[in-house]
Amino acid sequence: MHAYEIQGGFGLDHLKLVKRPDPAPGPGQVLLRMRAASLNYRDLMMVEGSYNPKQPLPLIPCSDGVGEVEAVGEGVTRLTVGDRVATLFCQGWMGGRPAVEELRSTLGGPLDGTLAELMVLPDQGVIRVPEHLSDGEAATLPCAALTAWSALVEQGRVTAGDTVLVQGTGGVSIFALQFAQLLGARVIVTSSSDDKLVQARRLGAWQEINYLDDLEWGKTARALTGGVGVDHIVEVGGAGTLAQSLQAIRVGGEITLVGVLAGGASELSIVPVFMKQVRIQGLLVGSRQAFERMNRAIAQHELRPVVDRVVPFAEARDAFEHLKSGAHFGKVCIGFE
Amino acid sequence: MHAYEIQGGFGLDHLKLVKRPDPAPGPGQVLLRMRAASLNYRDLMMVEGSYNPKQPLPLIPCSDGVGEVEAVGEGVTRLTVGDRVATLFCQGWMGGRPAVEELRSTLGGPLDGTLAELMVLPDQGVIRVPEHLSDGEAATLPCAALTAWSALVEQGRVTAGDTVLVQGTGGVSIFALQFAQLLGARVIVTSSSDDKLVQARRLGAWQEINYLDDLEWGKTARALTGGVGVDHIVEVGGAGTLAQSLQAIRVGGEITLVGVLAGGASELSIVPVFMKQVRIQGLLVGSRQAFERMNRAIAQHELRPVVDRVVPFAEARDAFEHLKSGAHFGKVCIGFE
Amino acid sequence: MHAYEIQGGFGLDHLKLVKRPDPAPGPGQVLLRMRAASLNYRDLMMVEGSYNPKQPLPLIPCSDGVGEVEAVGEGVTRLTVGDRVATLFCQGWMGGRPAVEELRSTLGGPLDGTLAELMVLPDQGVIRVPEHLSDGEAATLPCAALTAWSALVEQGRVTAGDTVLVQGTGGVSIFALQFAQLLGARVIVTSSSDDKLVQARRLGAWQEINYLDDLEWGKTARALTGGVGVDHIVEVGGAGTLAQSLQAIRVGGEITLVGVLAGGASELSIVPVFMKQVRIQGLLVGSRQAFERMNRAIAQHELRPVVDRVVPFAEARDAFEHLKSGAHFGKVCIGFE
Amino acid sequence: MHAYEIQGGFGLDHLKLVKRPDPAPGPGQVLLRMRAASLNYRDLMMVEGSYNPKQPLPLIPCSDGVGEVEAVGEGVTRLTVGDRVATLFCQGWMGGRPAVEELRSTLGGPLDGTLAELMVLPDQGVIRVPEHLSDGEAATLPCAALTAWSALVEQGRVTAGDTVLVQGTGGVSIFALQFAQLLGARVIVTSSSDDKLVQARRLGAWQEINYLDDLEWGKTARALTGGVGVDHIVEVGGAGTLAQSLQAIRVGGEITLVGVLAGGASELSIVPVFMKQVRIQGLLVGSRQAFERMNRAIAQHELRPVVDRVVPFAEARDAFEHLKSGAHFGKVCIGFE
Repeated sequence: MHAYEIQGGFGLDHLKLVKRPDPAPGPGQVLLRMRAASLNYRDLMMVEGSYNPKQPLPLIPCSDGVGEVEAVGEGVTRLTVGDRVATLFCQGWMGGRPAVEELRSTLGGPLDGTLAELMVLPDQGVIRVPEHLSDGEAATLPCAALTAWSALVEQGRVTAGDTVLVQGTGGVSIFALQFAQLLGARVIVTSSSDDKLVQARRLGAWQEINYLDDLEWGKTARALTGGVGVDHIVEVGGAGTLAQSLQAIRVGGEITLVGVLAGGASELSIVPVFMKQVRIQGLLVGSRQAFERMNRAIAQHELRPVVDRVVPFAEARDAFEHLKSGAHFGKVCIGFE
Repeated sequence: MHAYEIQGGFGLDHLKLVKRPDPAPGPGQVLLRMRAASLNYRDLMMVEGSYNPKQPLPLIPCSDGVGEVEAVGEGVTRLTVGDRVATLFCQGWMGGRPAVEELRSTLGGPLDGTLAELMVLPDQGVIRVPEHLSDGEAATLPCAALTAWSALVEQGRVTAGDTVLVQGTGGVSIFALQFAQLLGARVIVTSSSDDKLVQARRLGAWQEINYLDDLEWGKTARALTGGVGVDHIVEVGGAGTLAQSLQAIRVGGEITLVGVLAGGASELSIVPVFMKQVRIQGLLVGSRQAFERMNRAIAQHELRPVVDRVVPFAEARDAFEHLKSGAHFGKVCIGFE
Repeated sequence: MHAYEIQGGFGLDHLKLVKRPDPAPGPGQVLLRMRAASLNYRDLMMVEGSYNPKQPLPLIPCSDGVGEVEAVGEGVTRLTVGDRVATLFCQGWMGGRPAVEELRSTLGGPLDGTLAELMVLPDQGVIRVPEHLSDGEAATLPCAALTAWSALVEQGRVTAGDTVLVQGTGGVSIFALQFAQLLGARVIVTSSSDDKLVQARRLGAWQEINYLDDLEWGKTARALTGGVGVDHIVEVGGAGTLAQSLQAIRVGGEITLVGVLAGGASELSIVPVFMKQVRIQGLLVGSRQAFERMNRAIAQHELRPVVDRVVPFAEARDAFEHLKSGAHFGKVCIGFE
Repeated sequence: MHAYEIQGGFGLDHLKLVKRPDPAPGPGQVLLRMRAASLNYRDLMMVEGSYNPKQPLPLIPCSDGVGEVEAVGEGVTRLTVGDRVATLFCQGWMGGRPAVEELRSTLGGPLDGTLAELMVLPDQGVIRVPEHLSDGEAATLPCAALTAWSALVEQGRVTAGDTVLVQGTGGVSIFALQFAQLLGARVIVTSSSDDKLVQARRLGAWQEINYLDDLEWGKTARALTGGVGVDHIVEVGGAGTLAQSLQAIRVGGEITLVGVLAGGASELSIVPVFMKQVRIQGLLVGSRQAFERMNRAIAQHELRPVVDRVVPFAEARDAFEHLKSGAHFGKVCIGFE
């Protein structure tokens, strides 16, 4: 089978198409023929060596993908040949409070990932996907969708009447925009691109803010809620945006920290955290049980993930380049066939 | 009646003993003859002008106190003359999720505080105290005890088998040390003073760390738990200690931010917050309902607050000086008559 | 002013129109000129003496109403003359966990209720209503709407993808049907009337069951969910319907018990409660804070309560008769022209 | 190896000592040499055919036991030879919200149980036990201890200052008595035996009620709390005791239903459930994650389970007889070798 490896060093030039022996499923495992993968910013950082410079190589990158069960190992009862399944980002986190080793059992580093024609995974490490989704759409669920779902529903308990703020129009943020509306909340979207804000509006955003035009977007967001502040923020920017988020948030509000795209460290005043009784909740994607609940909601509402494009497997590097350019709106996927 | 005012400017030199007309309770209010007050670091900062430089003056400082109901206004049924009650820090926060104006209805700024022989407050703004407590002990409850209780019980859900870390031996930290043990948790205490660590040990601390000798105390604390990390940290230091707290905390653990004694702002990496799924929960003391639950537990266990000393009302300035020196272990109180 | 009293005994014949002196607001109180009231089944039971046979008479019945603030007493800052407000069912329950005396501070028994042209209530005992609602619509909020909201959101945490079952088409059930959809859930409705089921479908019901045709409606409901069971049931029937509800509910599901219309006592097997880990949560309407959150959601979505009819104040008895007939779909209101 | 089977029909006369081939661990499994088992009332009901008359026979009874890992199958990394482990009652429930099939994966029916010298189980179906416990003590953890822990901590959130009521002095109730004290709560114990009440007092009970002398024990319990009611009841009696429990419980209190020893069905008024906003939470033992948290607390406090006696394996029938007599105080165990 063919796969991509990060090989001999980091950087897109080190992303190589290779041949590996076809794997076979052991007891409790399934063999998947992959149909689509989906890129996250983490995957790009992994290839470039900025996510974890100590990651041993070679490594097959990417955590998210969807495939068809081609064979099952001894003792597998959960799945049968022909099932279409997505991969779990944290292979070991089934539900409840995760143990540290469960949070580290992640695909695309340290474990080999989804940019391979065939994968062998434990049967509990994959999950059936809603039927109405295309392969590309289904491939977007493991990280981007599940992070947004966990932030709003599993941790955040967003409910009808709430105001949610999402930062930018990356994968997590667009899913959060979609899920928040299912839950009866209204959404403020920030972006540096007026074009993307127009697209966010088409997806149901209640208010949009171009943060290049409005450096004090936190105050603007609070003003939009009549001065009360927003109930929930899905924080993808990290230290670089948190100061504005603390302006935007209401007393007793919650900020779910899911990424540090705008910086992991900065000079930050945390006084508002206790003066406003804010909760900052770190989140690393989510559990298998949360994935099941999310899938149920997606199926019930026939929600469709936003896919920017599906790049052929042979041109996988282009997909990374496109993600890096920031020009996309929605998820960048890779199609096998 | 006599009272202290911060008068004509900030600083201990501006703390003046004055005479004010005796107040009378209006409808729904009670008149208290104060018996004891208790100092918090916030009170010192308020006098010195560092808590809120825009606070209008004159102001009677201090939020915590205990008094006897001397008269009740029209319509008061909750209390009767002779009841011994403590003041609520947030006069308006009865329970549930606080509104912003409820969090701002605090004694000792912006509202006049407890350094007065007589006080008039709404009946719902005071609460009966457990009988086994001395006046000085009871005066320590409104901020220090309730903050620790809210952090561990109302927000933190600390339970048997947990490990709790408390920073230093200030009022909140000592109460947290006491309450955590009631809940079946064990406690790690940090301090810069070996003497104070010995006293903490006498109060039941499981492990002690002198953070002057051990700048990497966060790693040490984690090592003490077999590498897992502590479950809960009562963060009084703020930005100045948070980096070490993020070292000490377990995956999925919680840090309740209740103060910023070691600094409100600093260059801080928040990457561990999401990689370890940490919750940082800001907390501003607590509600009346939480106070009732805390009093019930204190009464049931006949828990005794740790009082460093009770300074006579006439020498109130000495109490502030003593608090400022940092030499105290336990609460510094002021006794009337 | 005019008012209705239950006078000299129970029964609709004892519902008398009387003249009482105009009341005046004391300190912390407001005077309302009532615009509309809304009937609950409890009000009918109260008039007939079956809710509380020991209720002292005379009593002005009905707990729900909306009026305009005509005057405010000393110290009222929360409201101003001209505000349109609804009454709180539990006058004393502000938020958090209620004390027993707070649950007993209910209008329409033991306290005088809303069938009066003028009412005096504490300012915290009334709440502003969304502007888009008519007076009749706004009068339906205090019990029926708030019970449904509390069941689904405050206690039940219903979320996207859930299946909710509501029993019949009374006031609470129709609100639950509407709110559940806001939250992203789908709803199964039971009724003895095919006509009412058609109306429920128009309001968005996902599935309908006529329980006269289908005595084993609990199994049918479970079958509709693919055998898994429903996530949440708003139980208005009580002991008379609970056995079927325990058939319908999923493992780990929740039944919120809000009424006992089909009987308060019966021979009941509770084995499924523990074998299926079911939660049965009793609920008595809800708190002021919950009311505020509900109003926010109603306003945001411009949700419109279903009003069967608005009967003039002079013909209030007809409203009770109509409620008793069971012919209504939606709330029966009384308008004070 | 030797084992006991329920063979050819139900009843203690059908409990037969048999020889079976020694089992071997497959992939992901471990082989245990059993050291002790512990009886629950469910095991007696299973033998007698009253728990599940449709249970296929033969069946090795009993769900609880402790053994030493003698061999591990392919791919097992969680455990090593020599580890001392207890069995999980629900073999499949790892954490979070259980799926229905996870609740049905129980030992001692439908799956073969612990009355066998050797057992093969999935590695995730056993858990290391605290070192300070004897084998007999450790064997009591899987059902009795975990049920009590789940009721008080995982579901009930019992905390310092609470009053807990436990019914009788069976295994779950004694553990609840012990755990509640760890959590800072005080405990009321009911029993039909004054001798057992004396023993409960020695274990720290705060108040005792002999329910034979006091049929209205629910009112007595409420009176003991000053009329407020108890916060939490661990309900082992079921329908036969629930009416009194509803008398004893406070407004907003919780009853965890873990058994139906006093009857599964009865004429029951549920009006107090909603008038007092009571939560009745069904519970079936608990998850693996809960077991881990419980073990941590037991180890930290060196808590010792109460063992009535350890009967030799050869005399296992006597253990069942003794359990049936009701004369025991604490757990009845069976020792291998």
